[in-house]
Amino acid sequence: MRITALSGGIGGARFLRGLLPLLGPGDQVSVIGNTADDIELFGLTICPDLDTLMYTLGGGIDEQRGWGRAEETWHAKAELAAYGAHPQWFGLGDRDLATHVIRTQMLRAGFSLSDVTAALCTRWDPGVRLLPMSDDRVETHVVVASDDGSRRAIHFQEYWVRLHAEVPVLDVVVVGAAEAAPAPGVLAALADADLVLLPPSNPVVSIGTILAVPGIAAAIRTTPAPVVGISPIIAGAAVSGMADQLLAGLDIEGTAAGVALHYGARSAGGILDGWLVHTSDAPDVERLAQQGIRAQAVPLLMSDLPAASAMAQAALRLSGRVPA
Amino acid sequence: MRITALSGGIGGARFLRGLLPLLGPGDQVSVIGNTADDIELFGLTICPDLDTLMYTLGGGIDEQRGWGRAEETWHAKAELAAYGAHPQWFGLGDRDLATHVIRTQMLRAGFSLSDVTAALCTRWDPGVRLLPMSDDRVETHVVVASDDGSRRAIHFQEYWVRLHAEVPVLDVVVVGAAEAAPAPGVLAALADADLVLLPPSNPVVSIGTILAVPGIAAAIRTTPAPVVGISPIIAGAAVSGMADQLLAGLDIEGTAAGVALHYGARSAGGILDGWLVHTSDAPDVERLAQQGIRAQAVPLLMSDLPAASAMAQAALRLSGRVPA
Repeated sequence: MRITALSGGIGGARFLRGLLPLLGPGDQVSVIGNTADDIELFGLTICPDLDTLMYTLGGGIDEQRGWGRAEETWHAKAELAAYGAHPQWFGLGDRDLATHVIRTQMLRAGFSLSDVTAALCTRWDPGVRLLPMSDDRVETHVVVASDDGSRRAIHFQEYWVRLHAEVPVLDVVVVGAAEAAPAPGVLAALADADLVLLPPSNPVVSIGTILAVPGIAAAIRTTPAPVVGISPIIAGAAVSGMADQLLAGLDIEGTAAGVALHYGARSAGGILDGWLVHTSDAPDVERLAQQGIRAQAVPLLMSDLPAASAMAQAALRLSGRVPA
Repeated sequence: MRITALSGGIGGARFLRGLLPLLGPGDQVSVIGNTADDIELFGLTICPDLDTLMYTLGGGIDEQRGWGRAEETWHAKAELAAYGAHPQWFGLGDRDLATHVIRTQMLRAGFSLSDVTAALCTRWDPGVRLLPMSDDRVETHVVVASDDGSRRAIHFQEYWVRLHAEVPVLDVVVVGAAEAAPAPGVLAALADADLVLLPPSNPVVSIGTILAVPGIAAAIRTTPAPVVGISPIIAGAAVSGMADQLLAGLDIEGTAAGVALHYGARSAGGILDGWLVHTSDAPDVERLAQQGIRAQAVPLLMSDLPAASAMAQAALRLSGRVPA
C-alpha cells in the first residue's frame, strides 16, 4: 500500500512514528512536509518541520520538547548572543546546527531542497520518503497588531517562538506560495496513493500552507485514494502548540468539527473523506456526517508510541484500507 | 608609542598577551594577522590565526591547546561526521562555530574581512587593533609527496592538522598572494610605527605569507621604526608547532640564526634590525652581529604570562624604544 501524508512538525511526526510499525515490507509512506515555516537565520537555511520529521522518525528527536536534537547543547547559540547577533529567540542547538550547515552548503552549491532533504535522510533513515512541499521559497508571515495599533507582518517563527502565539492574529500571508511549484514527486505521490492521510498538524500554518502550493489541493481533491485526517483540536483547544489562537484570528471555528469543515468534504469540493475526532468530541461525528465527512471518535492523545499507533490504526480502519 | 606586530597564531598571540601589560594608556598596538591559513569548510570561512589572536587576547582561548575556545564542546563536529561530511580532521568546536557563522554571514553580505574582524573584536576587546594582512583570499598550499612518489598540493590546514606536518615538504605555494592587496591600514601601521615586532611565529607559513603580500615587505624595509623579531626556533627545534619540518623542506636553516638570516638585516635589504634568541642559542648572537643583526640571548620559553612579558620586555629593550 502506498500512503501519502501531509505533515507539519511535532504532531505529524509523532503520528507517523505510530503509523510505521503497523505497516508491512510492501507498504510505502511518502510524507509531504511543510516548508513554509522555514527561515534563514545567521545565513543558515533552517527547515523546522522537515527536521522534526527526520529527527523524530530517525531516532534523534528530543522527546520532551518534541523538536530539536536529544542530548542537545546550546553553546553556539550563547556565543551568537554574546556577539550581539540577532535574533536570539530561536532555539539553535549545537547538534542541530550541523544539519543547517550541511543543508545551507548544499543549497548554495546548487542542489534543490528535495535533493538536500534526500541526502540528509540517508543518515536518518526515517522509514518514509520525505518530500518538501516545494523546492521554492515559501514563508508564512503573520500579520499582528503592534502596541500602537498599527499592523505589521512578522515571520511565523517570530510569532510562534518569540511571541508564543500570544498576540492576536489579524491575518496569515503565505509569501511565495502562489508562485511556488510542488517539489518533484509531490503530485505523483498524491495521484498514485492508495491512502492520503492528514496527521494532526496545524490546519493553517502546516497543512494550509502545503495546500496553498498550486496543484496540491487539486491533486488531493482528485486522487482515487481515500483522504482521512486526524483532528489537531480536542475540546476546542490545540492538542499541542497554539493552533487555536491562530484559528480564532482567521474566523475558523476552533473545534474538531470546525477544522474538518474548513477542509470540507471531497463530495462537496473539499479534501476530506474521513476525520477522526477525540472521544470527548463525539457529538461532532453526527454533525460532520451531515456534511459528507465520515467521522469517528477515538482517543487522540499521543501520550506514547502505542497511543499514536492506536490513532494510526483508527485512521487506517476509517479509510477502509488495510496494510499489506 | 605605536607598535605594529606581524603575527601568526599561538606563538604570536601569547607574546602579544605578554606585551600588553607593559604598555601605558598612550601606547597603541596594531597586529597584522596572517590569513593565509584561512580555509573554507562546510561553507564557512574560518580564520584560524585571527581567531587565535582574538580569543587569546580577549580571554576566550583554551589555554591547554592554545587554539579554540575554552570550555569547548564538539557536538556539531560529531554530527557533521555522522552525516558523512568531509573533512573530519578539522577541530570545529561548538562555541568556535558561532564565530565562523557570523563571519561567513557578514562576508556574504558584502563586508570585507577587515570590517568583519573589527566587528568580531568589538566583542573580544583584544586590546590591539587587529588587521587581517589582506582582505583578498590568500591560501597557503603545501606541496607534498604522495605514497606513489607523485607531487600534490594540499591546503596548509590539511598538512598541519591532518598530516601533523609529518610528510616531507617539497614546496610551499602561497596561492593568491601575488594578486592580493594589503588590507586597509596595514601599510600605514608599518609606516607610522615607532616599533615593528615579529613575534615568535612561523617564518614560512605565518610571517612569510604576510610578507608575500605585495607592499608589506617593502613597508617594513623602509619604516623609520626599528624592527625586532623573536626566534620561534630554540636549539634547532620549533618551540611549539612544527615549524622545523617546514623549514627543512625549504632549505632554510632550522636554527635561531638561520631564521634571522632568512629574514635578513635591514642594512642589507632585509627586514630585521634586532633578533632575540634563546639563552641556549647564545653562540648565534655573534654570528648575527657579523651579518648586521643586533641579537641578544634571553629566555624564550613562554611558559606563562610573566615569561611572555619578560620576552616582550627584552624585545622592547633591544629596540631601544620605551613605552609611554
